[in-house]
Amino acid sequence: MVDVYTAYPKGRVALREVGLRDGLQLTKTWPTTAQKIDWVDRAFAAGLRYFEVGSFLPADKVPRFADVRDVIAAVDRHGAHGVALALNQRGATDALATSVPEITVVVSASAAHNEANVRRTQEQSLTEIANVVRLRNEAGRDTIINVGIATAFGCSISGHVPEDAVMAMVDRCFEAGVHMVGLADTVGYAGPRQIASLCKRMQQRIGDLPYVVHLHDTRGMGIANAAAALDAGCRVLDASLAGLGGCPFAPGASGNVVLEDLVYLCETKGFGTGIDLEKLIDIRGLLAEALPDEALSGALARSGPPQFEWRA
Amino acid sequence: MVDVYTAYPKGRVALREVGLRDGLQLTKTWPTTAQKIDWVDRAFAAGLRYFEVGSFLPADKVPRFADVRDVIAAVDRHGAHGVALALNQRGATDALATSVPEITVVVSASAAHNEANVRRTQEQSLTEIANVVRLRNEAGRDTIINVGIATAFGCSISGHVPEDAVMAMVDRCFEAGVHMVGLADTVGYAGPRQIASLCKRMQQRIGDLPYVVHLHDTRGMGIANAAAALDAGCRVLDASLAGLGGCPFAPGASGNVVLEDLVYLCETKGFGTGIDLEKLIDIRGLLAEALPDEALSGALARSGPPQFEWRA
Repeated sequence: MVDVYTAYPKGRVALREVGLRDGLQLTKTWPTTAQKIDWVDRAFAAGLRYFEVGSFLPADKVPRFADVRDVIAAVDRHGAHGVALALNQRGATDALATSVPEITVVVSASAAHNEANVRRTQEQSLTEIANVVRLRNEAGRDTIINVGIATAFGCSISGHVPEDAVMAMVDRCFEAGVHMVGLADTVGYAGPRQIASLCKRMQQRIGDLPYVVHLHDTRGMGIANAAAALDAGCRVLDASLAGLGGCPFAPGASGNVVLEDLVYLCETKGFGTGIDLEKLIDIRGLLAEALPDEALSGALARSGPPQFEWRA
Repeated sequence: MVDVYTAYPKGRVALREVGLRDGLQLTKTWPTTAQKIDWVDRAFAAGLRYFEVGSFLPADKVPRFADVRDVIAAVDRHGAHGVALALNQRGATDALATSVPEITVVVSASAAHNEANVRRTQEQSLTEIANVVRLRNEAGRDTIINVGIATAFGCSISGHVPEDAVMAMVDRCFEAGVHMVGLADTVGYAGPRQIASLCKRMQQRIGDLPYVVHLHDTRGMGIANAAAALDAGCRVLDASLAGLGGCPFAPGASGNVVLEDLVYLCETKGFGTGIDLEKLIDIRGLLAEALPDEALSGALARSGPPQFEWRA
């Protein structure tokens, strides 16, 4: 199950393209289904193997994710790994009715952020998570239930979030029966020292089990934080093409860490990604067309990779 | 002499604002002298203590640096440390006629880049450097002669630059009598692993002597590379407000590492900078006015620092 993230060769890192969900959460427009499928096809051809595909929300209220099943099918066709967001039992029920092999549920390490974000107490969110696990077990599915722990490195509402609070939340999630967790720097407050420290705690807690680090580049620390996470042993990182994304509670947020730049970082550090950078950069043309109001971030796409062999 | 860089309290890092020279090298317009002085005054008030002030070049050919003496005077008035670029003996003679306490001379670790950049062989550049040291000694001055070793992490013309070639150049510079050297990622090819490795070699070679790491953010690695340099013991880093700058031989280059973001990195890593981030960000208004054609980079200025106490 979670070995989908550890099956990669030694020294490899699993990069998850979250642009199709997190990246599209707040955009003015969104790609057509055909464009989303093209995005998946081309990203797969560039070497991507992990995709956040969308969110299971009421299609009439959130039409941008109404075609999540089509994106799941596109990812499936390639034998790649899809991850769908479900905010509650209803969403999880819908997700479990599809072939998507992983469902992400979210809880915040900060109580105030949890209430602002999902209008539930942390205890209510944990109950919901336990119910999602129960639904999954009752369905006899081997779907990975992965909890994204938001504001793991600080909160725009309550400020500093103690490591102990994050690790207590990690414990509670595993007690609720989930298979994986992720640490999210939702509002982009983290620095590399903080990342290293919390990743070390994770390693102590879960050993060789994979876990996700989800970074935003709000304060320009995204790539430095990814380097710190890699150094601390994390091997699953989220990113989005052109840094698409943001957070309603992170004013001025500049989105997810830029996938293209992250590939460059990983490769120069000697972590294979299996990704062809030129092909990856090429997909930005599709984004520019599909999302004319969005600023496309990223340095590597502007400068291009070095003209010589640069992989470590 | 070089203890101007090691006089800072333990755990402190010396950040050099190179915007007034490197940052203005290729801009379409440049600030008036009054604007440059305002820039220095406000940066000093924000806590900056090290300034690259300009370049000693023929004023009729390069008018943007014709007022370098005024900038030196502005830095002097605050008792801050100024650094002037001199490309040859003529420039060094002019610089030595001023009060500027440090002169930077440049040589490339890549032979091809050296020839393209200054139309001299590396041997000719080393002779020029030795002559600058001689001029300085003959003048009875205690000016720091600092060699910026360009393309220390790769070259857009000849590609990979071996570490041994860089360290051989470091040796040659010290043999020529210089007091400090800097390692410059001129074209923005470096990754943090490379930075760590070369900084380790520097430490082995020069022990506790300060040395500069000069980073460009061409491929988005600037802040991650700065983190690697700090981790490897480097305590003098170049940066520019809003990431101003570029290199004629680095197409698409996005300039120096962004000073505001670097301050955030340093402080979250527990390295004091003495810099007030809000005051620093405020100076961007002056740049926007003085350099209307330049894109001002940087994430922190967009998002602002966290609203809570974030320093490590």
